[in-house]
Amino acid sequence: MHKRTIWVHPKDSTCIQVIDQRDLPHRVTIINLRRSEDAARAIEEMWVRGAPLIGATAAYGYYLACIEAEQQTDPQLYLKQRAHRLMQTRPTAINLAWALDRMAKSLEQPLSPADMVETAFEEAGKIVEEDVIISRQIGEHGLPLLHEIAARKPEQPINILTHCNAGRMATIEYGTATAPIYLAHEAGLPVHVWVDETRPRNQGAHITAWELEKAGIPHTVIVDNMGGHLMQHGQVDICLVGTDRTTRQGDVANKIGTYLKALAAHDNEVPFYVCLPSTTIDWNLKDGLKEIPIEARSQREVSHLKGWDERRNVMSEIRITPPGSPALNYGFDVTPGRYISGLITERGICPASEEGLLALFPEKK
Amino acid sequence: MHKRTIWVHPKDSTCIQVIDQRDLPHRVTIINLRRSEDAARAIEEMWVRGAPLIGATAAYGYYLACIEAEQQTDPQLYLKQRAHRLMQTRPTAINLAWALDRMAKSLEQPLSPADMVETAFEEAGKIVEEDVIISRQIGEHGLPLLHEIAARKPEQPINILTHCNAGRMATIEYGTATAPIYLAHEAGLPVHVWVDETRPRNQGAHITAWELEKAGIPHTVIVDNMGGHLMQHGQVDICLVGTDRTTRQGDVANKIGTYLKALAAHDNEVPFYVCLPSTTIDWNLKDGLKEIPIEARSQREVSHLKGWDERRNVMSEIRITPPGSPALNYGFDVTPGRYISGLITERGICPASEEGLLALFPEKK
Repeated sequence: MHKRTIWVHPKDSTCIQVIDQRDLPHRVTIINLRRSEDAARAIEEMWVRGAPLIGATAAYGYYLACIEAEQQTDPQLYLKQRAHRLMQTRPTAINLAWALDRMAKSLEQPLSPADMVETAFEEAGKIVEEDVIISRQIGEHGLPLLHEIAARKPEQPINILTHCNAGRMATIEYGTATAPIYLAHEAGLPVHVWVDETRPRNQGAHITAWELEKAGIPHTVIVDNMGGHLMQHGQVDICLVGTDRTTRQGDVANKIGTYLKALAAHDNEVPFYVCLPSTTIDWNLKDGLKEIPIEARSQREVSHLKGWDERRNVMSEIRITPPGSPALNYGFDVTPGRYISGLITERGICPASEEGLLALFPEKK
Repeated sequence: MHKRTIWVHPKDSTCIQVIDQRDLPHRVTIINLRRSEDAARAIEEMWVRGAPLIGATAAYGYYLACIEAEQQTDPQLYLKQRAHRLMQTRPTAINLAWALDRMAKSLEQPLSPADMVETAFEEAGKIVEEDVIISRQIGEHGLPLLHEIAARKPEQPINILTHCNAGRMATIEYGTATAPIYLAHEAGLPVHVWVDETRPRNQGAHITAWELEKAGIPHTVIVDNMGGHLMQHGQVDICLVGTDRTTRQGDVANKIGTYLKALAAHDNEVPFYVCLPSTTIDWNLKDGLKEIPIEARSQREVSHLKGWDERRNVMSEIRITPPGSPALNYGFDVTPGRYISGLITERGICPASEEGLLALFPEKK
């Protein structure tokens, strides 16, 4: 198993490799990204997903576009077009814009085409390395919350509920919401994770469960409907989720259904924390409900489901709705900051509010 | 398509017929119940489900047991054993106990074995006929709520969210939560139903969507995670759900995930009504969270999913979780009365509280 989710081909630096996450947990396939269009498709068709990994993939896509630009009559125009294409692949994740902006800025000084390629390669590599450090820092800041729970109920499992996949596979390593969990497990705390299956794409059942199983961390898959009941019965000590975009006032867009879990946590006084690298904060937005664009995705993600046919030993797809019934599929919802106990960032934990965020990030005042 | 969900075989009154709901919407199979054990299995393995239909099936199971009892040395003991067996099939639905009690009471006077069979047959038939009337009354009491919405937003769709299947297939006809919808549709109101797919057994996507499609009622299947987002954006005018057991103080046990929708409705000031025949009220219980037993069901309902393989044109089952990941599966949750706008019963609408219920059912004081 690869330790990271995106890496440069060991023998060919013009080839970027990623794990195709579409067939997890049933099949682990490595895909080569050789052209910027490959990177765009990898994001668009969700071979890779998760805000930080989307950012890293876009950055490497930009690097591949720099290689392609050498053959173009107008390299600058070409690069702009490719950046635009990469930018259009997913509407919600702010990391996409952040990574592409950063790549473009690194090439602002006049450079020879060969130097552009070199610089872009280095910059994408830096984005990746920084993400690993950031995930680890999020883990370190979140860890004391789990220690507190452990102290309160010694020798009992620390029950953590998570939604979707804000794990290793959504980032480069460690994950965001899973980072405190990985560190707690390493420190010997008896963590147990309730994994929301996370319809419609089932990233919880498919990816988070697979990740945790590989890491030997006790976990149980539950349907998205069950978290409220568990919280009503004291079976959840803390919720840890990720985010695709966070506003200046601490509203959080994350995988559809996150809002329902935040409401249940609030109703049952269960702490609800959102883990995020500050790159997912959109400082230009305030009211998440009004301002964050929510991606509508294909009906087929609701009406059809892929999995492993154990009888025939193949991947198989089934339809689960009547052929005559339409479906609607929004990918995200917005959890207002008032339902969030705190934001766990690489700089520490803060309240999910403008004052809270600005205290940690005073340069954004 | 049969108008009802359970009926006596037209040529053989010792055979009861039901629709096997397990393969809906992909396959419609009619099953013969010839022995009381068939009825027990039909309930236990969820060939039939939904509180009123479970009650009716148990009643006919009791009738079949009366036929069997004629061959027993101790008919009374045998009947007791069969009633016990039928009672054990599902722990949550109160209708089961209600229907079996009623059957037993109808046979309290001394009767010849042949008269017992005759009386049981009639009593089960009455339970069925009364359920049809009750469903229709629930529909008539709920209808004005939909008229009010129509008056407030003329020529726009009335968006109703429902969870699980409290439709025709959960009862004998009309359904409970769907009864006002069917009547509104007949009255020409522009209803549109958001159908929660309702994991893990997907009764929404499988059964409610199928029912509504057959009835020509506009509807859209959504994942269970999406209702909160729709409510935040004004896309839900009212929630109508059913219940498997309601306590004296108006707490409601219904399919897992109902509680999360009630929280979202409350947060967004969307009316949240529970539709129920008074047979689902357990007058002996008060605090639903503490007192209603919640059924834990097989992990396999979470880890595996059945559907239609369109490529091979067969029903097929797939695994959607990693083989090494356990799952947990509670069938119901409890929504406290404080999150419920009202209970729609066959006698009218009342607040979800002890005073509210007792005003409609003063004989229970």
